[in-house]
Amino acid sequence: MTTLNLKTGHIDLSHGAGGRAMAQLIEQIFARELHNDYLAQGDDGARLPSAHGKLVMATDAHVVSPLFFPGGDIGCLAVHGTINDVAMMGATPLYLAASFILEEGFPFADLTRIVASMAAASREAGVPVVTGDTKVVERGKADGVFIATTGVGVLRDGVDCSGRNACPGDAVLISGPIGDHGMAIMSVRENLSFDSPIVSDTAALHGLTSALLDAMPEVHVLRDPTRGGVAATLNEITRQSRVGIVLDETAIPVRPAVAAACELLGLDPLNIANEGRLIAICPAHLAGTALAALRAHPLGRDAALIGRVEQDARCFVQMVTRFGGRRMIDWLSGDALPRIC
Amino acid sequence: MTTLNLKTGHIDLSHGAGGRAMAQLIEQIFARELHNDYLAQGDDGARLPSAHGKLVMATDAHVVSPLFFPGGDIGCLAVHGTINDVAMMGATPLYLAASFILEEGFPFADLTRIVASMAAASREAGVPVVTGDTKVVERGKADGVFIATTGVGVLRDGVDCSGRNACPGDAVLISGPIGDHGMAIMSVRENLSFDSPIVSDTAALHGLTSALLDAMPEVHVLRDPTRGGVAATLNEITRQSRVGIVLDETAIPVRPAVAAACELLGLDPLNIANEGRLIAICPAHLAGTALAALRAHPLGRDAALIGRVEQDARCFVQMVTRFGGRRMIDWLSGDALPRIC
Repeated sequence: MTTLNLKTGHIDLSHGAGGRAMAQLIEQIFARELHNDYLAQGDDGARLPSAHGKLVMATDAHVVSPLFFPGGDIGCLAVHGTINDVAMMGATPLYLAASFILEEGFPFADLTRIVASMAAASREAGVPVVTGDTKVVERGKADGVFIATTGVGVLRDGVDCSGRNACPGDAVLISGPIGDHGMAIMSVRENLSFDSPIVSDTAALHGLTSALLDAMPEVHVLRDPTRGGVAATLNEITRQSRVGIVLDETAIPVRPAVAAACELLGLDPLNIANEGRLIAICPAHLAGTALAALRAHPLGRDAALIGRVEQDARCFVQMVTRFGGRRMIDWLSGDALPRIC
Repeated sequence: MTTLNLKTGHIDLSHGAGGRAMAQLIEQIFARELHNDYLAQGDDGARLPSAHGKLVMATDAHVVSPLFFPGGDIGCLAVHGTINDVAMMGATPLYLAASFILEEGFPFADLTRIVASMAAASREAGVPVVTGDTKVVERGKADGVFIATTGVGVLRDGVDCSGRNACPGDAVLISGPIGDHGMAIMSVRENLSFDSPIVSDTAALHGLTSALLDAMPEVHVLRDPTRGGVAATLNEITRQSRVGIVLDETAIPVRPAVAAACELLGLDPLNIANEGRLIAICPAHLAGTALAALRAHPLGRDAALIGRVEQDARCFVQMVTRFGGRRMIDWLSGDALPRIC
């Protein structure tokens, strides 16, 4: 079997055709970077151990543009995003599967960099990519590379986290400053530069959820505010739980550079995607315990109590502004920030 | 929440932005068609029962073009393809996850038809789509719709199927005529018509593998010859098992229309994709039992014994032709049939 020219070569349609060229691509890029015993079985799927506990399954397609951004790239994002979806169910992520859709002409060098980033994220998280698939489409029928990842995990005993569990009186917590991921992407797209550059918060949050649930299994809701930001996530939760939420603007952590970029672009940080933050909703009397547990973890150092759950049949999310007024926090409807993840 | 115009409306970027429009799309197309208790949980993943046995996980991106073809569409194909990858491990498929990448401007009517076909295939197979994700990319950055599906299942007790288990002396069986799926796609692309139209064989094969393994758990290899066809699949197996395979051309079932279309296009049926066929390799003295079990199932009526495994350090796949000669059956390398699945 010949060797791919990983420095200057490109994907062509034969790399998706199920023949010799595809086998080369898999061996010389995917298997080499992502190596583990499950992937090495080399069949069309992976044989895994028995899982002890109730299963959890989550999936996410990743289409972020640009593919490389300050603080990460589509490879580590595809690992973090799906691990986080599993973790937010109150589960321990165990395995990932990854499907790649590649555009003809995509450079091997970029693909190798992305797969290496994926492998590093997967090793750091302790969640292996156990099986995968690669398809190639003609030039102009995709945009470089799209990656769909699926995660499987097991529910922690004694935990019942769901968007349907928010109760009036509960405290609403965020694990750190908001809007970093979305504004890191936007600053590249809009060619903005700041004194301190904005870096994506992309990170695997299962260590943080585990620390929180160890300290306090009574968490009602865990959710990562990705696309649509905190505003969309809280509106989803109020609809699912049939409650209202009132935020305190002065309590919501936003980095100065993110606030400045949002101001410049006419955006609200509450609508901006995060990839390494979580929202936790818990009984008010346990908010202190929850905050302490979050702040004791490196990914939750800047955690804050940002609001409370109220009775509200209209399921509104509102915010008490820094001037003492109340304003509605609606979902974005038409005003999309496309391809943020 | 307003109602989508499912007859004449189109996907726009807001349908992937995590806000109100995306929630509408999910409720009015995905949740409505694919409805089940797991999907109805409405969180970012699905909570599932405990699984008894070793887990199996497989994933596949689907990029077939055209999206609709004789005998199926990308929706049912995405269900069948991943169920089959799980089934070929000797496992019982339990759950599917589905990630959609949609192109701006894609008609709701086509999406609804595809999701309905997916739902029908999933119901018929008894394998629910328990969680999903939707992303939208700008016009010209994808090709209508791509669907990545991931399947989770449990290994059957006492079964050890792998591409590494083929042994010299084993019999090679195929469950039916080859090349139907690929030639159904090609006949649409090339605008060919035949007296009897060529229809894709796309089907979920877990019922057939279950019937086979019930009758005969000693199967060494199960594999579905999709992309690259029987030729690529057998070459993968000979490399994994370090053996050779010799086929008997006269024994390989090919429909007359498929043979004629291949002749016309200068293609070999052995290189053409199948989506509802399996190759089983088993000890020669059990070939009769295996054939009988396959033929007793509606999807294996035309099963045939097509070759045998030999000792061969070169890992060649060869065929004894109808004229008594031997020829090499190589993988396709450059000569791809792109986007066949």
